[in-house]
Amino acid sequence: MKKIINEPDVFVDEIIEGLLAAHPAWIKSATADKRALVRKDAPKEGRVGIVTGGGSGHLPGFLGYVGEGLCSGVAVGNVFSSPSAEQILEATKAVNGGAGVLYVYGNYGGDVLNFDLAADLAEPEGIEIQTVVLTDDVASAPKERAADRRGVAGMLFAFKCAGAAAERGDSLDDVARICGKANASCRTMGVGLSPTILPAAGKPTFTLPEGEMEIGIGIHGEPGTHRGKLESADAIAERITREILDDLDAEKGSRVALLVNGLGATPLEELYLLYRRSARLIADRGLKVARSYVGEYVTSLEMAGASITVMLLDDELQALLEAPANSPFFRDGTAS
Amino acid sequence: MKKIINEPDVFVDEIIEGLLAAHPAWIKSATADKRALVRKDAPKEGRVGIVTGGGSGHLPGFLGYVGEGLCSGVAVGNVFSSPSAEQILEATKAVNGGAGVLYVYGNYGGDVLNFDLAADLAEPEGIEIQTVVLTDDVASAPKERAADRRGVAGMLFAFKCAGAAAERGDSLDDVARICGKANASCRTMGVGLSPTILPAAGKPTFTLPEGEMEIGIGIHGEPGTHRGKLESADAIAERITREILDDLDAEKGSRVALLVNGLGATPLEELYLLYRRSARLIADRGLKVARSYVGEYVTSLEMAGASITVMLLDDELQALLEAPANSPFFRDGTAS
Repeated sequence: MKKIINEPDVFVDEIIEGLLAAHPAWIKSATADKRALVRKDAPKEGRVGIVTGGGSGHLPGFLGYVGEGLCSGVAVGNVFSSPSAEQILEATKAVNGGAGVLYVYGNYGGDVLNFDLAADLAEPEGIEIQTVVLTDDVASAPKERAADRRGVAGMLFAFKCAGAAAERGDSLDDVARICGKANASCRTMGVGLSPTILPAAGKPTFTLPEGEMEIGIGIHGEPGTHRGKLESADAIAERITREILDDLDAEKGSRVALLVNGLGATPLEELYLLYRRSARLIADRGLKVARSYVGEYVTSLEMAGASITVMLLDDELQALLEAPANSPFFRDGTAS
Repeated sequence: MKKIINEPDVFVDEIIEGLLAAHPAWIKSATADKRALVRKDAPKEGRVGIVTGGGSGHLPGFLGYVGEGLCSGVAVGNVFSSPSAEQILEATKAVNGGAGVLYVYGNYGGDVLNFDLAADLAEPEGIEIQTVVLTDDVASAPKERAADRRGVAGMLFAFKCAGAAAERGDSLDDVARICGKANASCRTMGVGLSPTILPAAGKPTFTLPEGEMEIGIGIHGEPGTHRGKLESADAIAERITREILDDLDAEKGSRVALLVNGLGATPLEELYLLYRRSARLIADRGLKVARSYVGEYVTSLEMAGASITVMLLDDELQALLEAPANSPFFRDGTAS
């Protein structure tokens, strides 16, 4: 186990300290324990607040998407563990500008439980809450049970579209509708090559023999749909992109956004190899890639591997993707 | 060896194909072999062109810093190998807007040879060339031989300052002066935890026993200054930051930019732990961190490890760092 860390039990707290020290112009803590972070300018009067959250270990996942045109606040759990309802409530109160608050997070048991509990606690405070649970991982459940799927890298698109809608002053109903539509338009599938070692446990999240890969793996090492010999970049991109496109079932001529996401230890060079083949296959299916994203967007500490996300676009979603966004981790508002 | 690649001998060409496919609004190829890439709007009449280049495997290093307010073009070598003089010349001609071209690249033998040769070839074409060789790695030579040092992550700051100067219309003399000043104001030192495996050779760039680290390692696995037991994030940050600050010898009250750079496989979480301790030590020395950068800026494929760069700022350099920049890999022009 080679990690650049201090004591495992303060791992998350020290990361947050580093983050707050590095980006004082962008984010601030809403609580003494620093587990509820919000935009520096929160609350924005008359604007819908957006609160996300989840376990740590996915940077820039969650924490990194608090900013202008993105989420307004985040509740930060321990590594791969849900934040508490109280932490979510504190983030909620700190971003409440009187227009309601949207909860947006990945479909994991602990997160669902605690966000629902926080919503119950926010109601007596007079804060209207709506919730969109993200479910873009096609490998995690069959299409007929799409609501049971886990949320993975597609969260970038959900945050981006909902955040742009909130920023321009849309109502809570509209921000929630757009966020739900963004989620429903996304399909993701991953491939894992090597596991993450949890700092506190000192153990890998899964084991995978030398020379093997696991297709469909989750961002906490949840089992995938196929384990076998490591294939070429082209073969992996084809496998994943085909499964995604079959599930998405987009009409010929449709526009899509294509995101190739690194899970932590996979170099950007390899992500571009996946992008290259995936984009060609998408074009071969008669679809047009209108926006491209290649990099680390939702990770799993030092897991080697990648995921591919395809989002079906219409004029509304594309305009929201193209709107300005500013956080220390994600800036946009320009050409693809 | 677990890599998501196709045939090793087309590794770089396929990465470039992916890159051009993903970012058609930003970059274009100046040659049929696609080894000379330039800004989409190149050449910009009356503006100084900036050409960089080097071996592949350092993304976003080199390739990723072609854009608005950054470099104008790049010559792309094979993995860890210099581009040819002809490729550099092609990039030079493609960015030449009549105001001269600045060459900016890291101090490596092959690069120096080929950029110098390209400058000789550009002269008869009527293109005035000036050169700044980057030398920010304090571990690679002692202070009295600072000109022999290698160029590493500090290149971000050199590209950013020179690019902003060129964008606003500075003369070649001024862009070269600013770039040289940015380089002279930067100090970097790295730590390696695990090697890169070269795709073609299939061999690691160095070996390091389990539980050990190497301080001062180069971005191609060049030997460092200290090899020993892996230490805590705080201890590593202290070691490196002290060496940098001793070498930089900044007056109390000075402003600096602080960059914590991941070498490829080290998660963002660990980089924030290094940032946290490094920033505190800098404050303890009576310096003020005015700009912060945490992420992967110059990598070494899948090497685990990190580097810390401190750049001494004055009003001129800080304004240039804060100026707008836009590339698919780096956007700036906002708060720290």
